[in-house]
Amino acid sequence: MRWTEFLLPTLKETPAEAETPSHKLMLRAGLIRKLSSGIYNILPLGLRVTHKVAAIVREEMNRIGGLEVLMPILSPAELWEESGRWGIYGKELMRLQDRHDRFFALGPTHEEIVTDIIRGEVRSYRQLPLTLYQIQTKFRDELRPRFGVIRAREFMMKDAYSFHRDEECLARTYDKMYEAYTRIFTRCGLRFGPVEADSGAIGGDVTHEFMVFAETGESQVFACDCGYAATGETAECVIDMPDASGEPKALEKVETPGMKTVEEVTAFLKKGPEELIKTIIYIVEGESVAVLIRGDREINEIKLARVLGTPNFGMANPEDIEKVTGGPLGFSGPVGLKDVRILADRTVKGACNVVTGANQADAHYVNVNLGRDFDVAEFHDLVTVVAGDICVRCGKPLGTWRGIEVGQIFKLGTKYSRIMKATFLDEEGKEHPFVMGCYGIGVTRTVAAAVEQNNDKDGIIWPISIAPFEVHVLPTNVTDPELREAAESIYEGLTELGIQVLLDDRDERPGNKFKDADLVGTPIRVTVGEKSLKEGKVEIRMRKTGEVVKIETGDAVARISEVVREEKKKLEV
Amino acid sequence: MRWTEFLLPTLKETPAEAETPSHKLMLRAGLIRKLSSGIYNILPLGLRVTHKVAAIVREEMNRIGGLEVLMPILSPAELWEESGRWGIYGKELMRLQDRHDRFFALGPTHEEIVTDIIRGEVRSYRQLPLTLYQIQTKFRDELRPRFGVIRAREFMMKDAYSFHRDEECLARTYDKMYEAYTRIFTRCGLRFGPVEADSGAIGGDVTHEFMVFAETGESQVFACDCGYAATGETAECVIDMPDASGEPKALEKVETPGMKTVEEVTAFLKKGPEELIKTIIYIVEGESVAVLIRGDREINEIKLARVLGTPNFGMANPEDIEKVTGGPLGFSGPVGLKDVRILADRTVKGACNVVTGANQADAHYVNVNLGRDFDVAEFHDLVTVVAGDICVRCGKPLGTWRGIEVGQIFKLGTKYSRIMKATFLDEEGKEHPFVMGCYGIGVTRTVAAAVEQNNDKDGIIWPISIAPFEVHVLPTNVTDPELREAAESIYEGLTELGIQVLLDDRDERPGNKFKDADLVGTPIRVTVGEKSLKEGKVEIRMRKTGEVVKIETGDAVARISEVVREEKKKLEV
Repeated sequence: MRWTEFLLPTLKETPAEAETPSHKLMLRAGLIRKLSSGIYNILPLGLRVTHKVAAIVREEMNRIGGLEVLMPILSPAELWEESGRWGIYGKELMRLQDRHDRFFALGPTHEEIVTDIIRGEVRSYRQLPLTLYQIQTKFRDELRPRFGVIRAREFMMKDAYSFHRDEECLARTYDKMYEAYTRIFTRCGLRFGPVEADSGAIGGDVTHEFMVFAETGESQVFACDCGYAATGETAECVIDMPDASGEPKALEKVETPGMKTVEEVTAFLKKGPEELIKTIIYIVEGESVAVLIRGDREINEIKLARVLGTPNFGMANPEDIEKVTGGPLGFSGPVGLKDVRILADRTVKGACNVVTGANQADAHYVNVNLGRDFDVAEFHDLVTVVAGDICVRCGKPLGTWRGIEVGQIFKLGTKYSRIMKATFLDEEGKEHPFVMGCYGIGVTRTVAAAVEQNNDKDGIIWPISIAPFEVHVLPTNVTDPELREAAESIYEGLTELGIQVLLDDRDERPGNKFKDADLVGTPIRVTVGEKSLKEGKVEIRMRKTGEVVKIETGDAVARISEVVREEKKKLEV
Repeated sequence: MRWTEFLLPTLKETPAEAETPSHKLMLRAGLIRKLSSGIYNILPLGLRVTHKVAAIVREEMNRIGGLEVLMPILSPAELWEESGRWGIYGKELMRLQDRHDRFFALGPTHEEIVTDIIRGEVRSYRQLPLTLYQIQTKFRDELRPRFGVIRAREFMMKDAYSFHRDEECLARTYDKMYEAYTRIFTRCGLRFGPVEADSGAIGGDVTHEFMVFAETGESQVFACDCGYAATGETAECVIDMPDASGEPKALEKVETPGMKTVEEVTAFLKKGPEELIKTIIYIVEGESVAVLIRGDREINEIKLARVLGTPNFGMANPEDIEKVTGGPLGFSGPVGLKDVRILADRTVKGACNVVTGANQADAHYVNVNLGRDFDVAEFHDLVTVVAGDICVRCGKPLGTWRGIEVGQIFKLGTKYSRIMKATFLDEEGKEHPFVMGCYGIGVTRTVAAAVEQNNDKDGIIWPISIAPFEVHVLPTNVTDPELREAAESIYEGLTELGIQVLLDDRDERPGNKFKDADLVGTPIRVTVGEKSLKEGKVEIRMRKTGEVVKIETGDAVARISEVVREEKKKLEV
């Protein structure tokens, strides 16, 4: 491709709208342009990368027997009502009415439609297992779209769905997917880690997220040298239980005027925060629920949602707290609390002589004891893990890193097949719901994650497998016929070999051309300059290492194609 | 691909919902499944064809220098308001509001967005010409979705947009597109014709539609041996003008009790229908307009819309006719008509001693003369052409055929660039609006058109260039290890050569397998049967001709790959 015949609008200045390196660089290098909040035009350079990522994804899906389909974006409300998600999904689901006032969703994910297809077409266990996938535009009306195409409202996604006769068969496909995802992100040249995660609105029990390591990532991961890794939403840790062996002392109410925080109360009472139990009142679909946790820890609301079985809850406001407990915000406690479901984190187990609110203004109880002074309906793991917490697998302290989630795989089980009555017949003619898995990759997000992870102060450093061009040929002066001819000859020689070359044939100052070359980030740059050419040479420069080699002009095409082959080989799996 | 690992649900019965051959066969051969009115799942077999058509389109767009982009489906209302189409487009444009109540359209076409991109990125004449294209899902809320994916509400389309400094440059790209489209449909193995057409809601002056010949096509084409071809919406013809040389006779009002139709009136008056002038009252955006045409011809409302400059009009109802003319429906005429714009078809030119309505019940005028008894503000070509009308190019009678529109190319001129202030600077720093073209191909519709044109009573007959598989290997009995092994060996040999093979490895009765093979329509079928195999032979059968050849098993892979190569060569351009 000749630059003058391409649309590659690089920017000198960083657009004010961009926060993260990938967002800045994707705008500056002319890969994307914003159309509206969270909605982007993908320009020719950006689409070349997107197509390369999609092609790798497609190859790996086909390799494990996935069958590509294309399901509609317009998704009839009836199917979402059948699965129960029309009501649950909230504002993230974009909805519209057609000319006959029938409701549709713009597909954010396709469990409903694919289950509908399979219940229509698959009758027998003999047709199983079956994996369908598509690479398609998806829609999520994010509350806060940001980081360019990383958290966008319209984006390209690969979503796959597998159907099985039983959990064992699902487990085999799940493992194959896990391996396929590992190959995909490896082939894309990314440094990443699979981590245990929460299944959110999709549902299901077992799920892994594939996280590309990135300081700017929205996801916090807790990981251990032993191999354990989980998102902040789902990470577990060993809890050092409080010593419950002490002698229960007499319950006592003390005045704590104006002291609402754990720190204020415990400092005043000359105790540690771990000796207090916090009581948080939630309103869960109209019902109040009290959740207890030790004073030094925070509740993880994703874990809480899983326990409650719904994401539709929030902390009670002061009026509701007053109604439920009789006391104001900041003074809630479990003692004497009636007609409220009480849940507790495991840190509350064996609570002995602890501090709690007294459900009245400016008062707390001391020497509160579980079993004697209050009861808990259920204990769950509700704690927010922090770095240094103890790994549940090996007992060592957990480290933490941040990442960008580029893929997620789920064991769905029979969640959708049961509710949508999607069944097959076994050898004996007995009907069973399909056991399902689903598997997503954010294609445009993977492009952004690659940029986020592969850049320096001058621009992008593409892994060659997904680079928009493999070689960048840069004649320093196109008005010089000799330079121009030498550059054209290399360009054409490489192109004939099937190598993707960008020829910067602009009549621009060399300084600008070098800057743009670094910004655009092609892995191999070939400089055709006056001085070298007089010696019969051109210069090869590796974008990643800065390594420079001068080679004979006559050998250039052969040598460069060799370098391309070597670079590609490094990312093969 | 092995059938047992594929999802290929063929149907024995024709679904009741389907009317046309392509719709029936695409359902029966398991290419598509209906999700909702005009909304289809594309199953694996259908997607293989769709991808092949898309790949041919992409190659030909790249060949003429098109740059692929991906613009969003969510199209902000502001841009449509800027172009004026938010108000004009009507119910066909699907609209929604996001969580912040901002309006978006689901893109049915992308003139607004692409013009917005270019006005942001292109400043200089030096960057022109520029052609951007995308292959993307489009949405049109059709009033009557039908014929499967031919008239669907969600479909895959290639849309391209070109930007130029002047009309000459646009004309060059338009011609290149015309040639690219010709290559695309030729490569897809279709019999088609480019025809002059109407530009409709897109706008612009010059436009051609590419029509695939099909009896069931929605479009009527008028064509002549000389090469002239135009859609019924836009076709012109030579009009044999009435003889205006006669002596005007005295105007006379005659009673025509209860006679409302041309036939009734002229029969009663012993005249031919060509001696009467019909007067049709239209209401055009609140204003009344009288349109005159000779009694034996019909008004073409597409032509009328172009003359009126709006599609928003309709025939007046009886009350409005009474208000405008003073008389009832069926008795309108131009004599004495006041405060109404009067347009006429060219057939009215030189009207001499003709019959018209008298604008009162049960009365007509005879001996009406243009210029003496009424005047016409403007004459236009408003006539609906019929077969046998005279070609405007060569004077011979026009023939007619029906077709499916699979592509359309438009010279838009500056319609969008002017209104959206998209300009570039010329050599002298002077600002000009871009001159634009736009070019669409219905990708999924092309798939259906190919089926509509290539089938017989047994099923589809794919052109090899877009066939889901090139070769269909059919062992008559997979429980026979010899047959199975021979079939597998051919399957693997061909697959290794990069040939796309479907192996029917089902344990089914041979009759069913043959029926399914014909239905699915792979160009080359290889039958591995017991009898032949004993002679060391397998059978090759061409789906199109029914031609059968027996070949040595040992040569099979080489011979079949030769046949594939020959078949493909026939569709190369």
